[in-house]
Amino acid sequence: MSGYTLWFTGLSGAGKTTVADIVERELRERGEPVEVLDGDVVRTNLSKGLGFSKEDRDTNIRRIAFVADLLSRHGVGVITAAISPYRETRDEAREVMGERFIEVYVKASVDECARRDVKGLYEKAFSGEIKEFTGVSDPYEEPLQPEVTLDTESESPEESARKVLAFIDSRVQTAAGSPR
Amino acid sequence: MSGYTLWFTGLSGAGKTTVADIVERELRERGEPVEVLDGDVVRTNLSKGLGFSKEDRDTNIRRIAFVADLLSRHGVGVITAAISPYRETRDEAREVMGERFIEVYVKASVDECARRDVKGLYEKAFSGEIKEFTGVSDPYEEPLQPEVTLDTESESPEESARKVLAFIDSRVQTAAGSPR
Repeated sequence: MSGYTLWFTGLSGAGKTTVADIVERELRERGEPVEVLDGDVVRTNLSKGLGFSKEDRDTNIRRIAFVADLLSRHGVGVITAAISPYRETRDEAREVMGERFIEVYVKASVDECARRDVKGLYEKAFSGEIKEFTGVSDPYEEPLQPEVTLDTESESPEESARKVLAFIDSRVQTAAGSPR
Repeated sequence: MSGYTLWFTGLSGAGKTTVADIVERELRERGEPVEVLDGDVVRTNLSKGLGFSKEDRDTNIRRIAFVADLLSRHGVGVITAAISPYRETRDEAREVMGERFIEVYVKASVDECARRDVKGLYEKAFSGEIKEFTGVSDPYEEPLQPEVTLDTESESPEESARKVLAFIDSRVQTAAGSPR
């Protein structure tokens, strides 16, 4: 099977990592090569020292795209789960990877994410303790034509994961059935 | 075949890229998956903004090792060709990748590299125009037990490349013939 990159994007707390984890587990159970480039892993290994200005966020995203491109070129299913708030930078990643790029919009409102506030970050963002917080004091630009949209306010994580897996499977079938 | 990383190390002008190019071409002709992480490619895509202090060089090398590890884990033959002057940092990469790490010492004296001076860098280093230049104003720590040593003062690039390929081939045979 040829490689691809599942590019999860969405607010902090929208459920990117939760859904990505389920997708990863399922793909591993199938025996497929998978690699997760989690936001934190990447910030530790590739982007230490970068902050959260637009420029630094963009640099971080470009590095993730560079590595995801290398891996997916060699048949790996890559899963990235960084907020990646800027449309133009995601589109750059799309351009680099072409058909291997699968944008997965993990959709949940700021209100809902703030209500969940798993890591207690929104409280700090609203109080001003954390600056440049996406959705509160920093912009999030929604994808215009994502390959998959997950509405995590109405779907369970398992349902969301099934939608992602169904998309991958349909693409494989399309590729196998194409006359090329 | 399982992945590996050919970690070329040596002075600027020692012949790392020249030999790596020949090895890459041969591996591609064999139809094997190959990816080259050249020093310049990496500085552009992963390490923009880093300088040549020990700390910045180490960060650059750790990023190359992070990516080489990801790729070689998935069966890719990775070729890195950065000076990587510090032994401890190379040994870190070795620890990360274990048996997939193949250190290739591209050996040539400073005098010989300065005589070649393909990019005109040594002249600038000796005149002080370039600071922190490995082998002139910055240290180069020779590998103590490299898997392969290439003496590019006495071997042709083709001879050096053959030595590297012979090492890869012997390892594959050992692995195939091992009783494990």
